[in-house]
Amino acid sequence: MARIVMKFGGTSVANLERIRNVAQRIKSEVDAGHQVAVVVSAMTGVTDQLVGYVREAAELYDAREYDAVVATGEQVTSGLLAIVLQSMGIPARSWLGWQLAIKTDGAHGAARIENIDTADMITQMIAGSVAVMAGFQGLGPDSRITTLGRGGSDTSAVALAAALKADRCDIYTDVDGIYTTDPRIVSRARKLEKITYEEMLELASVGAKVLQTRSVEVAMKEKVRVQVLSSFKHKPGTMVVDEDEIMEKELIAGVAYSRNEAKITIMNVPDHPGVSAAIFGPLSEANINVDMIVQNVAHDGKTTDLTFTLTAADLPRALDVLEKAKPLIEYETLTHDANVAKISVVGVGMRSHAGVALTMFKTLAEKSINIQVISTSEIKISVLIAAEYTELAVRALHTAYGLDAVAA
Amino acid sequence: MARIVMKFGGTSVANLERIRNVAQRIKSEVDAGHQVAVVVSAMTGVTDQLVGYVREAAELYDAREYDAVVATGEQVTSGLLAIVLQSMGIPARSWLGWQLAIKTDGAHGAARIENIDTADMITQMIAGSVAVMAGFQGLGPDSRITTLGRGGSDTSAVALAAALKADRCDIYTDVDGIYTTDPRIVSRARKLEKITYEEMLELASVGAKVLQTRSVEVAMKEKVRVQVLSSFKHKPGTMVVDEDEIMEKELIAGVAYSRNEAKITIMNVPDHPGVSAAIFGPLSEANINVDMIVQNVAHDGKTTDLTFTLTAADLPRALDVLEKAKPLIEYETLTHDANVAKISVVGVGMRSHAGVALTMFKTLAEKSINIQVISTSEIKISVLIAAEYTELAVRALHTAYGLDAVAA
Repeated sequence: MARIVMKFGGTSVANLERIRNVAQRIKSEVDAGHQVAVVVSAMTGVTDQLVGYVREAAELYDAREYDAVVATGEQVTSGLLAIVLQSMGIPARSWLGWQLAIKTDGAHGAARIENIDTADMITQMIAGSVAVMAGFQGLGPDSRITTLGRGGSDTSAVALAAALKADRCDIYTDVDGIYTTDPRIVSRARKLEKITYEEMLELASVGAKVLQTRSVEVAMKEKVRVQVLSSFKHKPGTMVVDEDEIMEKELIAGVAYSRNEAKITIMNVPDHPGVSAAIFGPLSEANINVDMIVQNVAHDGKTTDLTFTLTAADLPRALDVLEKAKPLIEYETLTHDANVAKISVVGVGMRSHAGVALTMFKTLAEKSINIQVISTSEIKISVLIAAEYTELAVRALHTAYGLDAVAA
Repeated sequence: MARIVMKFGGTSVANLERIRNVAQRIKSEVDAGHQVAVVVSAMTGVTDQLVGYVREAAELYDAREYDAVVATGEQVTSGLLAIVLQSMGIPARSWLGWQLAIKTDGAHGAARIENIDTADMITQMIAGSVAVMAGFQGLGPDSRITTLGRGGSDTSAVALAAALKADRCDIYTDVDGIYTTDPRIVSRARKLEKITYEEMLELASVGAKVLQTRSVEVAMKEKVRVQVLSSFKHKPGTMVVDEDEIMEKELIAGVAYSRNEAKITIMNVPDHPGVSAAIFGPLSEANINVDMIVQNVAHDGKTTDLTFTLTAADLPRALDVLEKAKPLIEYETLTHDANVAKISVVGVGMRSHAGVALTMFKTLAEKSINIQVISTSEIKISVLIAAEYTELAVRALHTAYGLDAVAA
């Protein structure tokens, strides 16, 4: 007997037929004698619709009210799945964020789970009941609903698996594992059997979209064995595990891209200590994550230009914040561009190999793709390019790093 | 300065444009210096959609999960309205059933409010914040979400008005008041300036649909002055008040109808003491309200037939309950018919006038409409007829009781 957490994303619970399919997958695990907790997302499109309502209500909205509105999607799915399980003779109940409670910090809209009180849930699971937890949501210190940011249900699942000391956390999704790149762009993309937490972290953060970044961080910290697999096909997926578990390390695990990027350039900023804090302090206070940052040398020893990237969705808020902070930063002009994409190559093998970056730059140059910003980490190289070159760049890099599957 | 509760139904908050309209109505009251609490329903169609999901999930569903699913509609509207109010410079926050808390009994799906803890809300209202409460929902003794039954947001509003000791409870709806009958059926229906709690109670319970029955009961018990008015037109509506406040009492206040009726006839039941309890006990335990009951004299001194009506939506559950109770009740056969309508005439003036029932029976007979079941109260006469005669019956009775407006 094992204790497992199963997480189902939006497309897996898109309608009642699919929810019944999910219930069958759960039944298999229950019939095998396992204790099962389930975490569900909102039905496909529901969260987008709710976010759309909020944005239509006001451009600058109260994040506490946003959370109250948007958290309803997962609440609906958890109740419906519990009903379907019951109708199949499987005891089940829904658990909402405030009921457990899933205690988070107070960063409404992007809250972090601090603690999950699973005592009542474990009692009921031991008694044979399937716990169906609404993902994405928690309870803030103000006793109001918080949400964990888009894709937050993955984090809910991994954090629940850690709190329950579960043997495994299976993330069911509409893809059957982690690929070397997006198969919709590169037909010869290959499915990976295993991937390290670190590689997954870099892939998630650059937009592979399969797992939320934060969920991989929690999995790595809490050593939760995560499996990414398809809710439609019955076959093993990709295991996300410790580096030690992988014998044969490849140079590059995958090529990722993200189109949800925007670039802001602040021109003629006085080049003195403290100016970065003046810029990024207010953005951080507004919970806006900044990604790549490039600062050029001072034009004339006095002023400099500064470019950084952020999620496109945060662009209006960031512009608002920077406009208000203009007297403090003392910049001259500001330009922004949401028509950019970030392309990244990721692999733990990179640590012990030189020339990985060079291959990337050469490959892009051969296709006449201009690199706007570069950023690197120990196991990742990312570049910002014009969005229209996304597919071309991904295909060329996938081939250049020898990732293409052998034709069947 | 007054303290008022404003309640907006589904069509009044059907989309963001209408929610903005609602916010304007609220702003008028805030600008007039009033303390305002608002109660909102789900956006039109949302509750139906959620109920549809639940029914698609399983025909016999766990009412606790039903409540968790269906309560989300009001949660969404309360958050959106708070955001819109804030964007107009009016401090506001949403309040969910479990946050206040609105304590109810444990009858999931049809719970009754027992207590509303308004201390925090009053503090914030005095500080100038508009309280936007999600209607229809509460918190059960099991610490799970309860809902109050369809139309329950009216009851939420009246109960909140009582708890806040509000000066007035304005129920904004898509009609501009209480009419002598449904104007969609009778073009010469008249709007009433005032109506008594008792008449409103009878009208609500027979399907005038403007106010939920329970809300009128609470208003009568707690002496809450309720006004029914249009959220689209700027003019006074109908005040629901104590009988003492109405000088000129009319014989009949209105003619109401309900198509959401079903009839069950249980044939050849042993005619001995306790058989009614054997039938209606299990129905009551399943929270199924039975309305009109008719029992014929025993056929042969041994067995009898028993007919009763209930809400059509409860029919499948009632049939299930009665099927299970068959060994106990020992009936022979059971028939049911959901193709019936209930027509009622209501008026406190009826108490002091004879012949009201006779006029009803004669009028229906003249139109060759067969009366299946009759039930009367002090101020109401109801008959069950075949659904297809609904409009004909309502029109004929409206004219027969002299309710038609003088042609303009």
